[in-house]
Amino acid sequence: MKNNSLEVHRKLRGKVEVKSKVSVDNLEELSLYYSPGVAAPSSEIATDKSLAYEYTGKSNTVAIVSDGSAVLGLGNIGPDAALPVMEGKSMLFAEFADISAYPLVINAKSDQDVIDFCKMLEPSVGGILLEDIKAPNCVNIEKTLIEELSIPVFHDDQHGTAIVTTAALLNLVKLTKRDLGEMTVVLSGTGAAGSSIARMVKALGVKTIYGYNIDGVITNSKVSQYDDVVKSLIDDQVITCYNDDNATLEDIVANAHIFIGVSAPNLLSAQMVKSMAPDSWIFAMANPSPEIDPKVALDNGAYFIGTGRSDYPNQVNNVLAFPGMFKGVLESSKKIDEDLKLQVSKALANYIPAAELRPDYILPSTLDKGVAAAIANVIINGDNDEEN
Amino acid sequence: MKNNSLEVHRKLRGKVEVKSKVSVDNLEELSLYYSPGVAAPSSEIATDKSLAYEYTGKSNTVAIVSDGSAVLGLGNIGPDAALPVMEGKSMLFAEFADISAYPLVINAKSDQDVIDFCKMLEPSVGGILLEDIKAPNCVNIEKTLIEELSIPVFHDDQHGTAIVTTAALLNLVKLTKRDLGEMTVVLSGTGAAGSSIARMVKALGVKTIYGYNIDGVITNSKVSQYDDVVKSLIDDQVITCYNDDNATLEDIVANAHIFIGVSAPNLLSAQMVKSMAPDSWIFAMANPSPEIDPKVALDNGAYFIGTGRSDYPNQVNNVLAFPGMFKGVLESSKKIDEDLKLQVSKALANYIPAAELRPDYILPSTLDKGVAAAIANVIINGDNDEEN
Repeated sequence: MKNNSLEVHRKLRGKVEVKSKVSVDNLEELSLYYSPGVAAPSSEIATDKSLAYEYTGKSNTVAIVSDGSAVLGLGNIGPDAALPVMEGKSMLFAEFADISAYPLVINAKSDQDVIDFCKMLEPSVGGILLEDIKAPNCVNIEKTLIEELSIPVFHDDQHGTAIVTTAALLNLVKLTKRDLGEMTVVLSGTGAAGSSIARMVKALGVKTIYGYNIDGVITNSKVSQYDDVVKSLIDDQVITCYNDDNATLEDIVANAHIFIGVSAPNLLSAQMVKSMAPDSWIFAMANPSPEIDPKVALDNGAYFIGTGRSDYPNQVNNVLAFPGMFKGVLESSKKIDEDLKLQVSKALANYIPAAELRPDYILPSTLDKGVAAAIANVIINGDNDEEN
Repeated sequence: MKNNSLEVHRKLRGKVEVKSKVSVDNLEELSLYYSPGVAAPSSEIATDKSLAYEYTGKSNTVAIVSDGSAVLGLGNIGPDAALPVMEGKSMLFAEFADISAYPLVINAKSDQDVIDFCKMLEPSVGGILLEDIKAPNCVNIEKTLIEELSIPVFHDDQHGTAIVTTAALLNLVKLTKRDLGEMTVVLSGTGAAGSSIARMVKALGVKTIYGYNIDGVITNSKVSQYDDVVKSLIDDQVITCYNDDNATLEDIVANAHIFIGVSAPNLLSAQMVKSMAPDSWIFAMANPSPEIDPKVALDNGAYFIGTGRSDYPNQVNNVLAFPGMFKGVLESSKKIDEDLKLQVSKALANYIPAAELRPDYILPSTLDKGVAAAIANVIINGDNDEEN
């Protein structure tokens, strides 16, 4: 794979390209699309900025902005090295939602630099997808930009996995008729993604979410050592502190109903799965290797297993969410908030007809190009088939 | 034209779009172009930033950056309203040089904001085309960025017209065998474009360039009131101060050989053209209306007339320079400096075979798509046919 990928990337020299939608072969075309014709739309927009959505590509263009400080599986590799990943996201926007996306990797020395860059960039695009910015900084960056910009801003690493995980939970409830209010969740990994997952899962009615991270099990007596992201999860009663300071992951997993991992490979053992309540639901989403091998999980009593891997069913991949979500908000001028994210989860879940749901078909294929259109349609026109 | 342009722009909703170069229809493609395959080029670039030119689109991508503070013919209309113009430039890059160009219009409150934005943006692109930034600020912004960035930076409004004007002068010399060292130039307009024109024309061997701007004829006693751009033209002996404080444009045009206007409509009268030396060369490049009607200039003794208008021969248009120049520097990794700009002028001049030159065919058509390739070829491979 490695050599093949290098060869293909070297041959392509960029996975996306900017093309003209029109030809410029005669003076009429040049005059119409450029000078002097271009003065007409520019003059109109000068009197009313919102007309940029009518006369330019703003209504179908987003910027993918990353400082390369937390690239999936590679860490803080910097902006230059992050460019192939952002070009990949741009490729997915084009292929799955027909959205123009500029992959912008930036030299940022501080959170404020990222914020300043996006604020300056705002007139150029209809939305901003933040990517691969390290936690906890990403939380504050996104929060500030959502407050200060008038275009939608979305940090994919925080909310993308949360939206898809929530969709899977909705379909699991639909299939099994179980009550999330009576199920205990163990969340392994409480950074950017874990934090957003915790909030969305809590909003579904789960009463107890125990947390686990590199400092061990989250307990009351350790609160002072946590970063602001974890502290706010505790303050907001999203995560329940475990009442034993010496507890291990084994302890909190025992008898739990749902394990959600966005953490590190092989954290979850066969024994731990066996110790869970019967028919457990396991999300093992560490990349590139999951918290537990899917087959081992199923062999030891799990009813459902979702991973980031494309070679197993139920791949939890952000591409199921962001293209369709941006298509929808760009066309509807809606804001991306908790309600909208839940709406996306529901649309994604409802994409599979209830009668077709199976433990190994809880999420659509990441390659299914109907997903984005379906999500966009729900955002624009509402949940016409929510009863599905 | 106005209503037609509005209608066309509304229908298009953006003149350019980002497309994927590849299809993403199966897991092999998704894995190769995105996760996990993308880790290979990213890891390589992390060890050597220059490999971004091998494995990404950086080597064929530029950013068009404008704060919308000096849009052609419209003035300081701001970034939102400048977007149709920058999309037009992007369209020209795509159509004339097959270069991907992101049209980025930015909220900038100061020169430093523009500089900071471009410095942060640097890893994303192979070059930056600054557009429609007001003088004299644009001069310092461009100078600082050229010094501080390792990618080529070019302010089109300053140098684009200068390069094309210089090409025309080279062909006029070729056609008429006249000696520029014995010709006096009057430059009307000493802002961004005028300043660069003055320096390039001086470098061709012209001995005397008199200047005229909104403060009148440039003379020694008025030096203290000029901005830094004009002061440096005087300090560097590019512009010769006229020795009569009460002189008018009429006075300095009389007996001059060449008039170069980047100023305002109808500044040059028929009488003034008559007062020039015989067979004068006139560049009347104010937009959208030239300093003199081309027909009036020719009827009153001019040998050559070049304007910004597409409905007359010898249209002086930046599109003759920037697409091919960027194609060349992106592929050759050369810097854009005075030598390179002159090389572009020569390549543009030589594009017309010497035997075909006529007073009304001194510059190629702006629609001739062979021009950009010819300029790029000369930058990459040298002037193989300089004697042409």
